[in-house]
Amino acid sequence: MSIAGQVIRCKAAVAWEAGKPLFVKEIEVAPPQKNEVRVKIHFTSLCHTDVYFWEAKGQNPLFPRILGHEAGGVVESVGKGVIDVQPGDHVLPIFTGECKECPHCLSEASNMCDLLRINTERGGMLHDGHTRFSKDGKPIYHFLGTSTFSKYTVVHVGQVAKINPEAPLDKVCVLSCEMSTGFGATVNVAKPKKGGFVAVFGLGAAAEGARVCEASRIIAKKFGCTEFVNLKDHNKPVQEVGFLENSIPYTLLNFEHLIAEMTGGGVDCSIECTGSTQAMVSAFECVHDGWGVAVLVGVPSRDDSFKTHPIHFLNERTLRGTFFGNYKPRSDIPGVVEKYMKKELELDKFITHSVPLLDINKAFEYMLRGEGLRCMIRMDASGTTWINSTTLFYLPFTPYVE
Amino acid sequence: MSIAGQVIRCKAAVAWEAGKPLFVKEIEVAPPQKNEVRVKIHFTSLCHTDVYFWEAKGQNPLFPRILGHEAGGVVESVGKGVIDVQPGDHVLPIFTGECKECPHCLSEASNMCDLLRINTERGGMLHDGHTRFSKDGKPIYHFLGTSTFSKYTVVHVGQVAKINPEAPLDKVCVLSCEMSTGFGATVNVAKPKKGGFVAVFGLGAAAEGARVCEASRIIAKKFGCTEFVNLKDHNKPVQEVGFLENSIPYTLLNFEHLIAEMTGGGVDCSIECTGSTQAMVSAFECVHDGWGVAVLVGVPSRDDSFKTHPIHFLNERTLRGTFFGNYKPRSDIPGVVEKYMKKELELDKFITHSVPLLDINKAFEYMLRGEGLRCMIRMDASGTTWINSTTLFYLPFTPYVE
Repeated sequence: MSIAGQVIRCKAAVAWEAGKPLFVKEIEVAPPQKNEVRVKIHFTSLCHTDVYFWEAKGQNPLFPRILGHEAGGVVESVGKGVIDVQPGDHVLPIFTGECKECPHCLSEASNMCDLLRINTERGGMLHDGHTRFSKDGKPIYHFLGTSTFSKYTVVHVGQVAKINPEAPLDKVCVLSCEMSTGFGATVNVAKPKKGGFVAVFGLGAAAEGARVCEASRIIAKKFGCTEFVNLKDHNKPVQEVGFLENSIPYTLLNFEHLIAEMTGGGVDCSIECTGSTQAMVSAFECVHDGWGVAVLVGVPSRDDSFKTHPIHFLNERTLRGTFFGNYKPRSDIPGVVEKYMKKELELDKFITHSVPLLDINKAFEYMLRGEGLRCMIRMDASGTTWINSTTLFYLPFTPYVE
Repeated sequence: MSIAGQVIRCKAAVAWEAGKPLFVKEIEVAPPQKNEVRVKIHFTSLCHTDVYFWEAKGQNPLFPRILGHEAGGVVESVGKGVIDVQPGDHVLPIFTGECKECPHCLSEASNMCDLLRINTERGGMLHDGHTRFSKDGKPIYHFLGTSTFSKYTVVHVGQVAKINPEAPLDKVCVLSCEMSTGFGATVNVAKPKKGGFVAVFGLGAAAEGARVCEASRIIAKKFGCTEFVNLKDHNKPVQEVGFLENSIPYTLLNFEHLIAEMTGGGVDCSIECTGSTQAMVSAFECVHDGWGVAVLVGVPSRDDSFKTHPIHFLNERTLRGTFFGNYKPRSDIPGVVEKYMKKELELDKFITHSVPLLDINKAFEYMLRGEGLRCMIRMDASGTTWINSTTLFYLPFTPYVE
């Protein structure tokens, strides 16, 4: 019995005000309009960006709002004009879109779609500016066009990646955002070569750092990422720290001079995941002259400034930034899912916690305590919280700032 | 009758003190030592870098010195260990070398040889630290390892590019430095595509700008470089100026916002040739988000700082610098000479003046007055000064600063 074209009543976790626990309540979800898709969310995970907009510090508050943007689900119904997906398709909603028609979408190099580029301030749908969510007639705002902390959500068709229906949604869910960002920053932008030195700044600050390491590991095939340097440990700058699995330590280096010394002149590429301008400068200046490439991933503050002596560029260093790992959401993400299916890409170990929707506030607590990497939120609302203790570790949490 | 192994007495233009006219005198040139080559210079041209070190402002003065580093000549004799060139070979001495053994030379990406990288402060030869030039027994310092303002000079074998003997030395001479720098910055680093927008900063400041335009023209095939913007003309920011030949105006754009407006969001690539940090920032910020690449060519001052908001990087812009257009002197320059021979590369029109060695101070005057681009100095010391009036134009001269 199809519910297409009808308003759906379902549970959603709603942020009613900044920094306060979400309420899991029944809401109404209107049918999808032109170029929109209504998706039944099976799994969603909490990302730092959700927390940042939930805290809403220094922002125009937009509440009540349904947060959430890392998710996997199944298309329930589609609006007018939608031909690329149909009910039953497995999809990942993505916080930034691909219209396939603008200059950016037509460029091989860019994924910064003019029509559907990330917009953190928009609370309604692009088509008519209205929300598809309400509670007792009162509108509830959308978030990044995805709002995946709801059992059903409405998304622009340009923001859903149709994926292999065999792919487990509770795993590939994390490809919606940070995993792809960190992985893409490495394989699409930094492009390290086997045997080269890679420095990752900010393993402790953003989960992307771990994704970057994962990507580097795949390229490196255990060639020997070796050293950890702790920014907060000036007197003992080099620490060996076992990390994640098999006691393979990943490369986390800081301080350009130390790094130059450790690597005989600098690393071949570096990836900055913290958003701190100090780390950005170090990440750039620590790459080897002649060929070094530094890639910025971490999002800076509004008033930040990147500052360096231009001779570092003249000495043939390259500095680039990336957005969503340079992946085009609809064109490229299905292929990244395939990498997981072929076991070329590890995702499972990054999921350190799991909670039912009713316990979604626990996911916020884990992140605020810097505990683990990703907490999977199960929309079925049954079962209990579990922790993957074999891969659990603690990271200091630094919220995103824009 | 070979003069190999003997001291040669020949004319040279010697800078006896900073900023004073050169003296053309007879000097002694010792035979080449291990890994050195003695070259008979046929043609040399004056580059801004010569003028900068002749003025010696804010530098450790190193006089008397024989300047000059853009030249074409023929090997007269070789020292021990030299196998790559032999007497009679046509060569271009290059201000930076290629040992073919260090990590930079072994890297495909870099031309910044560890052994023979440009060294402006060295006045003697690498082998023994001594000079090969003297006047009445008093040593005369070398410059950049080339010192081409002498009828004979001694150069490390790693700093000579062996070229096609058919190539006219009075033309390909300019490939020793700026022409290759600007051309390589474009084709090796910026890599503009046909039909794209290219912004060149600093046509008026350094001759490389013109070289960059030449490279862009070759790629663009007259696709329509169109606009000039004069930094000094704020009220009338866009000027159409006929330039060089066929009334084809080349692209010279300034001011990132103006450029973004003119090009629908920014240029595809920009090339900065002035060394001004303000121009560097504009050159970077004026490239299109998603795919824009900015390349720094101009040499900055010692205390300069490049400053921008890091979001410009995050929006998928790339900033790179280049040294000698990323060309490896020995491996690549012979191929650039071949491009000229196949008429794929225009050089003749960049040579706007010609003087015999005795009139070398006129070349300095032309440059200081910003008159023309290159003045060819004929070492035969006969004939008179000529001016290529069909291509002559005036540029404000801004000396290089380091």
